[in-house]
Amino acid sequence: MTSFVRNAWYVAAWSREIDAELRRFTILGEHVVIFRRRDGGISALEDRCPHRHLPLSMGKRIGDDVQCGYHGLTFDGITGQCTRVPGQTNLPAAACVTAYEVEERHDIVWIWMGDPGRADRGAIFDMPELSDPNWAVHQGDALHLDANYLNVAENLVDPAHVSFVHPTTLGNSASENVPVHVRTDGEAIVAWRWIRDAEPVGFFKAFGGFDGNVDRWHYYYLHTPCTAVIDFGSAPTEDAIGEDERDRGVRIFALHFMTPITEGQTVDRWMHVRNTAQDDPEAAERMDVLLRKAFAEDKAILEAVEKEEARPSKRRPIRLAIDKGPLVYRKRIAQMIEMERHEDLAADPSPAFVYHD
Amino acid sequence: MTSFVRNAWYVAAWSREIDAELRRFTILGEHVVIFRRRDGGISALEDRCPHRHLPLSMGKRIGDDVQCGYHGLTFDGITGQCTRVPGQTNLPAAACVTAYEVEERHDIVWIWMGDPGRADRGAIFDMPELSDPNWAVHQGDALHLDANYLNVAENLVDPAHVSFVHPTTLGNSASENVPVHVRTDGEAIVAWRWIRDAEPVGFFKAFGGFDGNVDRWHYYYLHTPCTAVIDFGSAPTEDAIGEDERDRGVRIFALHFMTPITEGQTVDRWMHVRNTAQDDPEAAERMDVLLRKAFAEDKAILEAVEKEEARPSKRRPIRLAIDKGPLVYRKRIAQMIEMERHEDLAADPSPAFVYHD
Amino acid sequence: MTSFVRNAWYVAAWSREIDAELRRFTILGEHVVIFRRRDGGISALEDRCPHRHLPLSMGKRIGDDVQCGYHGLTFDGITGQCTRVPGQTNLPAAACVTAYEVEERHDIVWIWMGDPGRADRGAIFDMPELSDPNWAVHQGDALHLDANYLNVAENLVDPAHVSFVHPTTLGNSASENVPVHVRTDGEAIVAWRWIRDAEPVGFFKAFGGFDGNVDRWHYYYLHTPCTAVIDFGSAPTEDAIGEDERDRGVRIFALHFMTPITEGQTVDRWMHVRNTAQDDPEAAERMDVLLRKAFAEDKAILEAVEKEEARPSKRRPIRLAIDKGPLVYRKRIAQMIEMERHEDLAADPSPAFVYHD
Repeated sequence: MTSFVRNAWYVAAWSREIDAELRRFTILGEHVVIFRRRDGGISALEDRCPHRHLPLSMGKRIGDDVQCGYHGLTFDGITGQCTRVPGQTNLPAAACVTAYEVEERHDIVWIWMGDPGRADRGAIFDMPELSDPNWAVHQGDALHLDANYLNVAENLVDPAHVSFVHPTTLGNSASENVPVHVRTDGEAIVAWRWIRDAEPVGFFKAFGGFDGNVDRWHYYYLHTPCTAVIDFGSAPTEDAIGEDERDRGVRIFALHFMTPITEGQTVDRWMHVRNTAQDDPEAAERMDVLLRKAFAEDKAILEAVEKEEARPSKRRPIRLAIDKGPLVYRKRIAQMIEMERHEDLAADPSPAFVYHD
Repeated sequence: MTSFVRNAWYVAAWSREIDAELRRFTILGEHVVIFRRRDGGISALEDRCPHRHLPLSMGKRIGDDVQCGYHGLTFDGITGQCTRVPGQTNLPAAACVTAYEVEERHDIVWIWMGDPGRADRGAIFDMPELSDPNWAVHQGDALHLDANYLNVAENLVDPAHVSFVHPTTLGNSASENVPVHVRTDGEAIVAWRWIRDAEPVGFFKAFGGFDGNVDRWHYYYLHTPCTAVIDFGSAPTEDAIGEDERDRGVRIFALHFMTPITEGQTVDRWMHVRNTAQDDPEAAERMDVLLRKAFAEDKAILEAVEKEEARPSKRRPIRLAIDKGPLVYRKRIAQMIEMERHEDLAADPSPAFVYHD
Repeated sequence: MTSFVRNAWYVAAWSREIDAELRRFTILGEHVVIFRRRDGGISALEDRCPHRHLPLSMGKRIGDDVQCGYHGLTFDGITGQCTRVPGQTNLPAAACVTAYEVEERHDIVWIWMGDPGRADRGAIFDMPELSDPNWAVHQGDALHLDANYLNVAENLVDPAHVSFVHPTTLGNSASENVPVHVRTDGEAIVAWRWIRDAEPVGFFKAFGGFDGNVDRWHYYYLHTPCTAVIDFGSAPTEDAIGEDERDRGVRIFALHFMTPITEGQTVDRWMHVRNTAQDDPEAAERMDVLLRKAFAEDKAILEAVEKEEARPSKRRPIRLAIDKGPLVYRKRIAQMIEMERHEDLAADPSPAFVYHD
């Protein structure tokens, strides 16, 4: 049994990663060949010929079909059905590959790896700022981590690590003892804290132009299974902004789309959305530089943790006050995986068993 | 249980690979130290001292004996029996290493890894052209593949892959849909096809000097377990040669001797025999260049297939019309391995059980 | 079950390897973070935060405490108890790491990885020459070997390998057939031999200044589990020194402190103690050069043996006359490990069971 939730939309790639070439991506442990068709649409097929198991990504395109590079079996780029077997005229129905559901939106390519009947395109993550001209949207990198996605995601609903892992960029010692609040908001888990009347951190020294102390916030929204939105910003302390007035300050959303590659590898595609310096492409570049530094700090921590977790442990794990967000997240993921292991027949209308709570 | 047939002759090396030095070879998963004795004969011993397991290939020769580099135990190069234990005068009978049967012929070194009582030197592969001055014989390389030998051998009784894997050298699209014939010929499996009245392929453009269309043939003879002879050639279409008149055309035999190294590694020693440009060493070199390109194409395919086969599969494998040769081959190998797992007592003359078929 | 004896002192490092920095060492398969405190003492803590398993060596020092680099949990450098959990005021008792017993003596750092109640500092290896101004003491290297410590240690109670593994440095063919004597001396196993009236070996040609033949001795003292003292030297044959008069010759002690890292890796920290050229630092350097060459020869042998031992064997191992020392050593280690697996209640004074032997 894997640790993966299958019935969910995952980011397969930034749009800019996909073109006419056959490219292999690994998602939830499966190899997928992805390419852009002549009409601009995107195809995603199981990357293995059912005959002798050569990756189709080593073959070539014949129009919008894909031809295997070993014996020439050819598959329809949309349905995955075999369209040609050289040397014979019949096309056995078993000669097919899985075709995955794909959706491209805001220059992001989403893929559905689970039960095709449950793929609801309305459930794909979105936020109004992505379509709002008052906000500047910028795609960052695809960061590879040698770590299970649960450890990566946990880090993104954990404000407490910022003071210690990112002391020169996203945090400083002013926040070390400030309590973390946690609540759930539908399927999202939210952890946040405000650090009032403190020196600005490195990031906002660079972008806020602040003279004196600021009120700084961190809101972490973790959407199960694999999307995190980090809303962070600062405003001058003398402005005394309320918790729901964050647009009055310098506000940044950092979005993280985590794609589990294997049990031990995750790609974190991150981007940012800002209400400051909207027309300044250099500002986006400078933010990337700072964020790359911070995310490299996370990567070093998470990969070291991953290695240690693979070693035998002589102690029971301990959980602290700051772990509330991660604990709720892991509990929800465990429930989702458990649900996927069963057929849900509870919708049967015959009242043989009535549960009252 | 391995996938290896033990009671068979395998090519251990080209003669040019063996000299007075102690050299380690790995064959059927076993380490063997091979060297040329002072009389020119070849010795092949188990490459592990029975005392503390140091490879004998790390020791040194004392005449035709081999001395272990750890404590000086010395072994007879022909029998493998211990001839000296420093520090004691008795020579325990258990202090020995296996000495393998070796046969050198046509500059090829053959080894028998199985039951010594069944090693029949008359069964070693030969063909009259190797001794015929009208044919030019040329040894190629020892190509290492990270693939099980069954996958490598299968590829050598599979004419159908040529159009797709070797489109610029050994095949072209003219043959994509030409049927493949398969028959058995004693212990050999033969797969072949003729492509009549078509443009010559790259190889015969380079060596045949053809002006117009040709009749081209591919005959694949796969001798179990690990020797393949590929007879390929072309003749002008206007010559209208018959299937048994192939010597009238430009004819090449490519010989492949596959040596299983481990379950996941195979060495393919290949050579060629030709009835054209017999006295032109440059022709042999130019053929090597073309064949190296083609075999590198096979290597890329076979190594990718090997990796995919190690991954879990959610589908039942499918078999096509073009798979007849490989299927017969795998069935025969499975039978040979099954036979080796039993003592055959059926030769018992007492008719306790009489089978009529 | 591992092959490690836990209730023993092991060399963790040379003193010169330890400073104020947090450094990771791996000993008996466990990660330990070691550093020098402000008072000059040495701390050794389990190198894993009990919270999210980040190595503490990736954190930083706060005075003599160690702060985890993920969430800031802080641990006392002497006791291992948690002294701070950012974000909460209570300090759960379970938030601790193991603090290992450490002893620094003769610029060597010893560590006790076993039952703390049995750590007897009086049992740490010592020899009077280490404190005697008539002897020159010199620390060599920390040699890493990809080999189990039992194979490394065995080599250090095995005079018979010297002629074959070190023919140009520590041995020569004169000793190939000289018998080896073995006895036990308390917990030490002693193997030795004298080669009388023979050409000096390379090492003593370089350092003894001998004109003619010498009497040469090798005494190997192997102290369980992991300390070896090799007493070797030469004296002119005409001096006719007795076995207990070795100080009259040129005498060297090579000390080897083996630290099992994992089942397949060992560090051998070696040093030498000599009664010749005491005030000549270049002599120590030249000895290092020769010894490095010899120990590299051992490393090549031991790593090859380790690889072969991991492969299947079709033979029963054989043991020779020269194996007496190694056999006694392995038997004793097996007994020590067996003893550690049980609670010893035999000291119970009630005579319910009286054993007479």
